[in-house]
Amino acid sequence: MTLTVTPQPSSPLTVESRNSGPKQPVGLAEKFSRVRQATQALCAGLSAEDCMVQSMPDASPVKWHLAHTTWFFETFILAPHLAEYRSIDPEYRNLFNSYYNAVGDRPLRDKRGVFSRPSLDDVYAFRRYVDDAMLKLLEGDVSAELSDLVVLGLQHEQQHQELIVTDMKHGLWSNSLRPPFCESPSKAPNGNVPRLKWHRYPAGNFEIGHQGQGFSFDNETPRHTTYLQDFQLASRLITNVEYMQFILDDGYRRPDLWLSEGWETVRTPGWEAPLYWERRGENWWDYTCAGMRVVSLNEPVCHVSYFEADAFARWAEARLATEAEWEVAAAQAPVEGNFLENGTFHPVATSDKDAGEGPVQIFGDVWEWTQSAYSPYPGFKPAAGALGEYNGKFMCNQYVLRGGSCATSQSHMRASYRNFFPAHARWQFSGIRLAKD
Amino acid sequence: MTLTVTPQPSSPLTVESRNSGPKQPVGLAEKFSRVRQATQALCAGLSAEDCMVQSMPDASPVKWHLAHTTWFFETFILAPHLAEYRSIDPEYRNLFNSYYNAVGDRPLRDKRGVFSRPSLDDVYAFRRYVDDAMLKLLEGDVSAELSDLVVLGLQHEQQHQELIVTDMKHGLWSNSLRPPFCESPSKAPNGNVPRLKWHRYPAGNFEIGHQGQGFSFDNETPRHTTYLQDFQLASRLITNVEYMQFILDDGYRRPDLWLSEGWETVRTPGWEAPLYWERRGENWWDYTCAGMRVVSLNEPVCHVSYFEADAFARWAEARLATEAEWEVAAAQAPVEGNFLENGTFHPVATSDKDAGEGPVQIFGDVWEWTQSAYSPYPGFKPAAGALGEYNGKFMCNQYVLRGGSCATSQSHMRASYRNFFPAHARWQFSGIRLAKD
Amino acid sequence: MTLTVTPQPSSPLTVESRNSGPKQPVGLAEKFSRVRQATQALCAGLSAEDCMVQSMPDASPVKWHLAHTTWFFETFILAPHLAEYRSIDPEYRNLFNSYYNAVGDRPLRDKRGVFSRPSLDDVYAFRRYVDDAMLKLLEGDVSAELSDLVVLGLQHEQQHQELIVTDMKHGLWSNSLRPPFCESPSKAPNGNVPRLKWHRYPAGNFEIGHQGQGFSFDNETPRHTTYLQDFQLASRLITNVEYMQFILDDGYRRPDLWLSEGWETVRTPGWEAPLYWERRGENWWDYTCAGMRVVSLNEPVCHVSYFEADAFARWAEARLATEAEWEVAAAQAPVEGNFLENGTFHPVATSDKDAGEGPVQIFGDVWEWTQSAYSPYPGFKPAAGALGEYNGKFMCNQYVLRGGSCATSQSHMRASYRNFFPAHARWQFSGIRLAKD
Amino acid sequence: MTLTVTPQPSSPLTVESRNSGPKQPVGLAEKFSRVRQATQALCAGLSAEDCMVQSMPDASPVKWHLAHTTWFFETFILAPHLAEYRSIDPEYRNLFNSYYNAVGDRPLRDKRGVFSRPSLDDVYAFRRYVDDAMLKLLEGDVSAELSDLVVLGLQHEQQHQELIVTDMKHGLWSNSLRPPFCESPSKAPNGNVPRLKWHRYPAGNFEIGHQGQGFSFDNETPRHTTYLQDFQLASRLITNVEYMQFILDDGYRRPDLWLSEGWETVRTPGWEAPLYWERRGENWWDYTCAGMRVVSLNEPVCHVSYFEADAFARWAEARLATEAEWEVAAAQAPVEGNFLENGTFHPVATSDKDAGEGPVQIFGDVWEWTQSAYSPYPGFKPAAGALGEYNGKFMCNQYVLRGGSCATSQSHMRASYRNFFPAHARWQFSGIRLAKD
Repeated sequence: MTLTVTPQPSSPLTVESRNSGPKQPVGLAEKFSRVRQATQALCAGLSAEDCMVQSMPDASPVKWHLAHTTWFFETFILAPHLAEYRSIDPEYRNLFNSYYNAVGDRPLRDKRGVFSRPSLDDVYAFRRYVDDAMLKLLEGDVSAELSDLVVLGLQHEQQHQELIVTDMKHGLWSNSLRPPFCESPSKAPNGNVPRLKWHRYPAGNFEIGHQGQGFSFDNETPRHTTYLQDFQLASRLITNVEYMQFILDDGYRRPDLWLSEGWETVRTPGWEAPLYWERRGENWWDYTCAGMRVVSLNEPVCHVSYFEADAFARWAEARLATEAEWEVAAAQAPVEGNFLENGTFHPVATSDKDAGEGPVQIFGDVWEWTQSAYSPYPGFKPAAGALGEYNGKFMCNQYVLRGGSCATSQSHMRASYRNFFPAHARWQFSGIRLAKD
Repeated sequence: MTLTVTPQPSSPLTVESRNSGPKQPVGLAEKFSRVRQATQALCAGLSAEDCMVQSMPDASPVKWHLAHTTWFFETFILAPHLAEYRSIDPEYRNLFNSYYNAVGDRPLRDKRGVFSRPSLDDVYAFRRYVDDAMLKLLEGDVSAELSDLVVLGLQHEQQHQELIVTDMKHGLWSNSLRPPFCESPSKAPNGNVPRLKWHRYPAGNFEIGHQGQGFSFDNETPRHTTYLQDFQLASRLITNVEYMQFILDDGYRRPDLWLSEGWETVRTPGWEAPLYWERRGENWWDYTCAGMRVVSLNEPVCHVSYFEADAFARWAEARLATEAEWEVAAAQAPVEGNFLENGTFHPVATSDKDAGEGPVQIFGDVWEWTQSAYSPYPGFKPAAGALGEYNGKFMCNQYVLRGGSCATSQSHMRASYRNFFPAHARWQFSGIRLAKD
Repeated sequence: MTLTVTPQPSSPLTVESRNSGPKQPVGLAEKFSRVRQATQALCAGLSAEDCMVQSMPDASPVKWHLAHTTWFFETFILAPHLAEYRSIDPEYRNLFNSYYNAVGDRPLRDKRGVFSRPSLDDVYAFRRYVDDAMLKLLEGDVSAELSDLVVLGLQHEQQHQELIVTDMKHGLWSNSLRPPFCESPSKAPNGNVPRLKWHRYPAGNFEIGHQGQGFSFDNETPRHTTYLQDFQLASRLITNVEYMQFILDDGYRRPDLWLSEGWETVRTPGWEAPLYWERRGENWWDYTCAGMRVVSLNEPVCHVSYFEADAFARWAEARLATEAEWEVAAAQAPVEGNFLENGTFHPVATSDKDAGEGPVQIFGDVWEWTQSAYSPYPGFKPAAGALGEYNGKFMCNQYVLRGGSCATSQSHMRASYRNFFPAHARWQFSGIRLAKD
Repeated sequence: MTLTVTPQPSSPLTVESRNSGPKQPVGLAEKFSRVRQATQALCAGLSAEDCMVQSMPDASPVKWHLAHTTWFFETFILAPHLAEYRSIDPEYRNLFNSYYNAVGDRPLRDKRGVFSRPSLDDVYAFRRYVDDAMLKLLEGDVSAELSDLVVLGLQHEQQHQELIVTDMKHGLWSNSLRPPFCESPSKAPNGNVPRLKWHRYPAGNFEIGHQGQGFSFDNETPRHTTYLQDFQLASRLITNVEYMQFILDDGYRRPDLWLSEGWETVRTPGWEAPLYWERRGENWWDYTCAGMRVVSLNEPVCHVSYFEADAFARWAEARLATEAEWEVAAAQAPVEGNFLENGTFHPVATSDKDAGEGPVQIFGDVWEWTQSAYSPYPGFKPAAGALGEYNGKFMCNQYVLRGGSCATSQSHMRASYRNFFPAHARWQFSGIRLAKD
């Protein structure tokens, strides 16, 4: 984790809430409090029992997310930087470690669901205890190094905010009662999705990677030159109705459309639609954070794996974009869209009135699978110590997704952001944008 | 499930509490309330989060036990016998089915831990709702058939009381904090465990199986003749210190002591002691319902599999008893011992002063593995309908255990009772009594 | 392995060929040669490549059987009893060990198919080398102990003769070309299978187990008393056409007919008929040692698991016999039937003209599943040393089969013989005889 | 499979044997015969039994390779292009299909070892039959399309020549006798391996991919521009003694050196050295095609996975090259080195006298893992029809290796050649060359 924050009075860090009006510099303590409170606001409607659910090894209980994000501040900031700090419970050090070998042992990932103790109340007490210590630490002079660590901790917490939504969605769906995660219905789709068009980009050398202003993760650096051939990018995301055509055309039954490993993945569990889709009579229904409903035709298709995105693209005689192509196209776009702050927790349909010069729906709604395997950028150097385990060690057999989703904080997103998941993963809000040569 | 209850005024059913003083006939409604309350009393110290834990596929969450036992009364008694009965939630019918194919679908057994909804409060409300309906049903004339079903439901609930203890013990132990299930320490062991002696039984034809008075499960019937050779039975259970000698003598490293499948079972996960034992420096510690403590030498060894019991017996140049031998020896013994009602949730050491004519520790403390595969008795007939799935369909690749444990209700036990588990199971309170030719 | 051979001039050992005319005492050396040659005669039509095939972990390559039976004589007889004996290759000691932990390491069972070296020719040379040494050993005075060991080695070899047939049948069937194992077609079924009748046996104490004359395995001893209730035994085996009725009546789709573990076993691989059956249009075909053909209606059903035999019996409102019942009924029957010596390698239909006083098809044709779990007889003692691993350590989670099959040597069979396989095994010639209370 | 052969009189195809002296145009029929014979020459020392071995699902029996390469000519050339052609056995069509879904069904990959029939003799007869038909076809006018297909078939056969060596090596090693694959000892290492130096390459735009002369696979096209940062490439391969330092420095026990998935891979089977290494007392031994011997210190390390190559590089404070870097560096190097034609089947040590201007050991000896995930080149288009399944569908979760090995035909190699295997694969001759920024 190489922090590349360049503190500048006029370049506020990116953790402000969305509609903060005329920009006022916000202090670090205030930023800290806002992000921490936002996490708890997400969980306000969940019971202690809900927060225990671990419905598959890839997902974690919400209680674990609440504790682990707190552990991060304790382990990497309070323990080394606040002399008088004493842990509320020394056992938490191992209990809430995720994957940092340098920090010590930890429970098996797929056993996080057995932790009834500490209770949710105890975890909230742990949060308050750490928050109090953090605010005390931030009262005084804050070194650049410390400030960078705090910002990293907040970015880390925002990542777990997204996982709280996706893991809890999966957990509640795993219950045959299919209870909703939230009451807010997703926005009604409007009438017209514009026809899919192609935006052309000429070949040449381009710079990609983080610019050096504001925060970024180490995997976005160093900024570097890459050569791109001519390419075209679709003007919008693929919709549910377009994806249904793929299904109707036997998309899930034709091996010629699939990567070999994708074909195995599809056949073994018998996939025949995106995750959360369910056929009831004539209709496809899907499970949303607001419960079961008929699939909305104009919304972006969501909860597809890399394998499905790739097969769809082949069927459509197109391909997925590389991450460099995507970043070049996204560089001009404002970081606006349907983000976590909207509270819909679901992608929404675009319409003619949203159309601009370039592609729309670049940010928010759904993460866009790229065809790029997750690899180090030329010259990439992970940080020394435990924080070096944050990103680099996962650069194998995963694929890059770009743009953020309806479960991502707007203040967390930027054009150079690299998310990554294995090719079979479907429980994130992941969708499809096509590209062509 | 062939019910063989023969109602007799002088032969009260077996669900009274232990110290009921001079026997007074207790009405069925009163029995019902006592058993149902006893279940909830067991869970009084558990949080809603504790009641969610499923730490392995063989164990179920306490909340599930609370709901499933209630479902049993609703499905097999209220629905068919109380005309105006309406379910509190029709979804519960499938949600809390355990394994009755004739009743319909059900969630996968290893996914019972994902059910945050209904909440524990909802499950308690379900219990109250069903209890009210049951008491209403029991107010009027109760037919013999109905009475038999109610008694069966209570026996079923008592089985789940035991599972609540063993599953929750496993669940809390799976938490690296090793929190206790209860505050009550197990009784301090007294000084002297009597030397192990052998009681001799001459050959001949014997009757085993349920006598026809009071309740029994269908698998205890019909009572039938069997021929036994001369045999000897150990005067008491094997103790921890005796088991330690087996360990010290490389008992877990000598294939000649083990059944072939047992040897595979031991080697794969690397067992080297009973479940819940943990080496800390020079000492063995074990996890009890009251938390971690040094292994108490004189207590009966507990949480061993059939494979371990069999290997220990071979090492000791003895064998396990058959279930018929055990039952013949137990026929004279009073059904007394260290049962659930004691609240220790742990086996206790015997002492000279407990010694009598025959073997001691026959009932309570730990289930005693027999060498008998679980098979139908000659002439066995399971009941028609869904309740026929109660016992018979499990008569394959399991072994019979006898005598009940510290987690079994005294009122649930009798000499003819046949418990059964697979040869590798260790999370029940299961121990060892030796036999010889 | 307790040998109970009582050498008696008038009681020849049981390894003679079937039609040996007026009984002449046959010397041990001659017996040895006959059995060893019979093994090789079985393999005469197989190529070196055929003898390499291992189509599943439970089956072994024929080459391995040829070598392992030879290893048995080398390890347990030549090495300890022939002073000047030197192994042809010391590596064979571990290479061809099956499961004797006391002898040392061995290759993994499921990797026996990778052994291209030693070649089949080398293995035949190994056989000749050991045969020569054995014959030399048998030239002189042969102690009773040595004679017992030789007989045991021959009985062991006959067991592997049966496995050569069943393992090679499975191996060739695993090849999509379905090549035959032998040219000889199975006998054409004759017209009339007699109606199934019931033979009644009154209750009482009976002796079962080996009598003490001739050879037996240790697991058949000691002979002992057992009490049996009244029972009835079917007059013949269940036929293919009777089994088809079970299939047509949705036998494979009704969970109420199955043991719980059987139901899981059926559903996972999707069994819907005996092993080797294949639906082609309107007909069931099956793979026999002579290749694919239409299922012959009157032949005994074969290649069914314990689970299927048990489910069929339940469907037929009957049950399987216990092994004690079977042995009592078989005690009077002559050891005659369709054995390996016939060379059909397939069960044949019975007919009216075969009918006698008691049940027919008791011996030969197919092994008959009993409902008895494989357990030690009262007073059972395995031999000291490595040979004690022969039988006793497998007495767990297996079921007893009785009577021998069309792949068993007639001279290998007797009423007290206990074969055993896990409940899911189907690749032996295993079938169904019903019993009733 | 887009064939990009541009027939030019002066640009002979690449299948000539190595020492062909002054280049004479070699006719296609002659090329065909040479490659086909070379395959059989490789197998000359193998018995029919050896050719049956399948020691793991990733490896195939040699007999299968011999048949499948022949099937390729029959299916893609003779069937569509030789009117009178009749298959020697129509069953072979499915039997020897590898993974072409468009061709039809096929046996499971991990069951290729059960095919004793057809025999090795039959497979050789199949080869002769197809060879005769091919030579007849090549007698007349050969269209450019047909010529391209034949060349593809020969390249395909050369790939399987390499697999014959690596699969048979693994198969023989799986036999605890560790028999050799060939008699020829690998060359004795000479005294001095030159010190590892770094060659520098300046940043800029480069062209990579196949040039358009001679044969290439579709995955090497289209040739395209890519931008490279400054980089350095090691002058030679990493040697065994260098790798031993990594082992001694606890390389296999420090999670900080490993990718997360690599660490899991190492720990589960307990890897602690390259495949085929075995500790005997003080020394490491390894299994070579000539049998077991002490590890030769100066030879290139071999049989390491991507995970091990990556961990070694991290330990050495370097990294693996990208495939583009490798190709730019290799573009000037002659395609010379230790190839299959040498008959050593083992990498050999380099020495000072081999040193030239640029890096040595670029071609031959061992495949060099690159850090590049196997992905389509910009503008990549797989061929229509079944041959389109050759490469493209495997572009997921695999890594690119470059340069060929001691088991690769020299005439098969070129700078643009892209081999690919999953990150855990070790049974190929795969080694390590370092790079740096």
